[in-house]
Amino acid sequence: MERYDIAIIGTGPAGLSAAITATIRNKKVLLLGSRDLSGKLSKAHEIQNYLGFPAVKGEDLAAAFQKHIAEMGISITEKRVSAVYAMGDYFALQAGEDMVEATAVILATGVVQGKPLPGEEELLGRGVSYCATCDAPLYRGKTAAVIGYSPREEAEAAFLSEVCTEVLYFPVYKEETDLPASVRVIREKVTGVENQDGKRLVRTAEGTYTVDGVFILREAVSPGQLVPGLPTEGPHVTVNRKMEAGIPGVFACGDIVGTPYQYIKSAGEGNVAALSAVSYLDGLKRSKE
Amino acid sequence: MERYDIAIIGTGPAGLSAAITATIRNKKVLLLGSRDLSGKLSKAHEIQNYLGFPAVKGEDLAAAFQKHIAEMGISITEKRVSAVYAMGDYFALQAGEDMVEATAVILATGVVQGKPLPGEEELLGRGVSYCATCDAPLYRGKTAAVIGYSPREEAEAAFLSEVCTEVLYFPVYKEETDLPASVRVIREKVTGVENQDGKRLVRTAEGTYTVDGVFILREAVSPGQLVPGLPTEGPHVTVNRKMEAGIPGVFACGDIVGTPYQYIKSAGEGNVAALSAVSYLDGLKRSKE
Repeated sequence: MERYDIAIIGTGPAGLSAAITATIRNKKVLLLGSRDLSGKLSKAHEIQNYLGFPAVKGEDLAAAFQKHIAEMGISITEKRVSAVYAMGDYFALQAGEDMVEATAVILATGVVQGKPLPGEEELLGRGVSYCATCDAPLYRGKTAAVIGYSPREEAEAAFLSEVCTEVLYFPVYKEETDLPASVRVIREKVTGVENQDGKRLVRTAEGTYTVDGVFILREAVSPGQLVPGLPTEGPHVTVNRKMEAGIPGVFACGDIVGTPYQYIKSAGEGNVAALSAVSYLDGLKRSKE
Repeated sequence: MERYDIAIIGTGPAGLSAAITATIRNKKVLLLGSRDLSGKLSKAHEIQNYLGFPAVKGEDLAAAFQKHIAEMGISITEKRVSAVYAMGDYFALQAGEDMVEATAVILATGVVQGKPLPGEEELLGRGVSYCATCDAPLYRGKTAAVIGYSPREEAEAAFLSEVCTEVLYFPVYKEETDLPASVRVIREKVTGVENQDGKRLVRTAEGTYTVDGVFILREAVSPGQLVPGLPTEGPHVTVNRKMEAGIPGVFACGDIVGTPYQYIKSAGEGNVAALSAVSYLDGLKRSKE
């Protein structure tokens, strides 16, 4: 299998900045995320403190970032990474349906907004999943609920509907849904998930729904879920000033490492994370010579 | 005396970014440095990894920064800060011939390139000075040598020539000098300074010059000299991830806090330092209520 030098997860300012610097340093980079970059960035009304862009609209800053990576020939692989496994001297990433390999990993996935649902963490892996692509086979011929935090999750619900006998979809956003008729859309506020008699209950403000499996799909997975064993503090990855996370070869930058949640701070940290990853790679190479 | 909320020392990307964010947060900011911003930045041939500006010339990036602060009404006070004294709940800064006061200080002066000259640190305050404006009166009617690391230092040498009987100027750069005829320019590599019989000797690769005082003038003063008592590691200020230096109310960002020496990293850190200074000020205000 092809092995990348550095896999960068996330296409906000932190991930893009890391990708640019790692590319300049001639590393083989895999940049994973959304080709639309960060939804938060594009929707920002006005950003005043990204030095060099006075009073810029989010969409204009995003366009400048797109131009920058395009001019450098950096492309974005639009896959969702659901897990990163440390394999000794490299990492294996579950990226959509594929596994990819990289010697170093930079986490730039942003911060998970909001708290987990009541019951979510307890049931994870026991009827609750964050990855439809990975776990759909477990629910073939059964019923599933999808709690989707953005319209991007609808594709996962549509995919599940090809496998499951029934799919309930709970959108946690205001936009209209665009789903196959076989998916039942329920616009009710989800208040928690529970196990009962070998089934899963999804409780809402207005009722209770019984299914076999529950998929909770957010833009970002919490870092401890993404990289098993990674030291975290609440929703944040613990890093030092070199952006080294607690596992050799893993670096993190941007909102995922903590406040302030600011674009220029994220971009700066992406640069540092990339250079630290480059040092790590060079060190590995030297130790093998 | 007027007291600023935050004095920011340095007008490279770190200082500018800090000034923008502190201004947005409605703090009374004094930004001290060169109106030409960072000499290093303006001379950069091409910068590839300042996210949003693909393959930009240093002068164009500097122009974008100038435009940003101008649109926000931020002005630069062109004074060299030679010392910062902690006075309890505020700081006193020696800025050129003036003293100014600020409740918090952000150090963004860049890193001192190169090692001190042999003898420099031993003789500091005993015949060697970093500040012509401060110490010129000590050498009225006497002789002085100026070791200037950039053309900006020539103004100091010219000023000394009005006070001293003789001024020798040792330029540590290639540009032509533009000095009064009374200043003797000596283009020889300085190898060290010494005390001998109550006089100072400046040794060069080609000879020895005897004077009363020696002024060593660089773009940046080492941080331990600038802020007495500040914890440092070599040429760098020790900071945590909030950019807090070892003295409450003192923050630092950019090259002064360590590698990598990168513009986007400095800009990101300036943002963090400013927000930490704002938190510090808000905390002080609350504790007084």
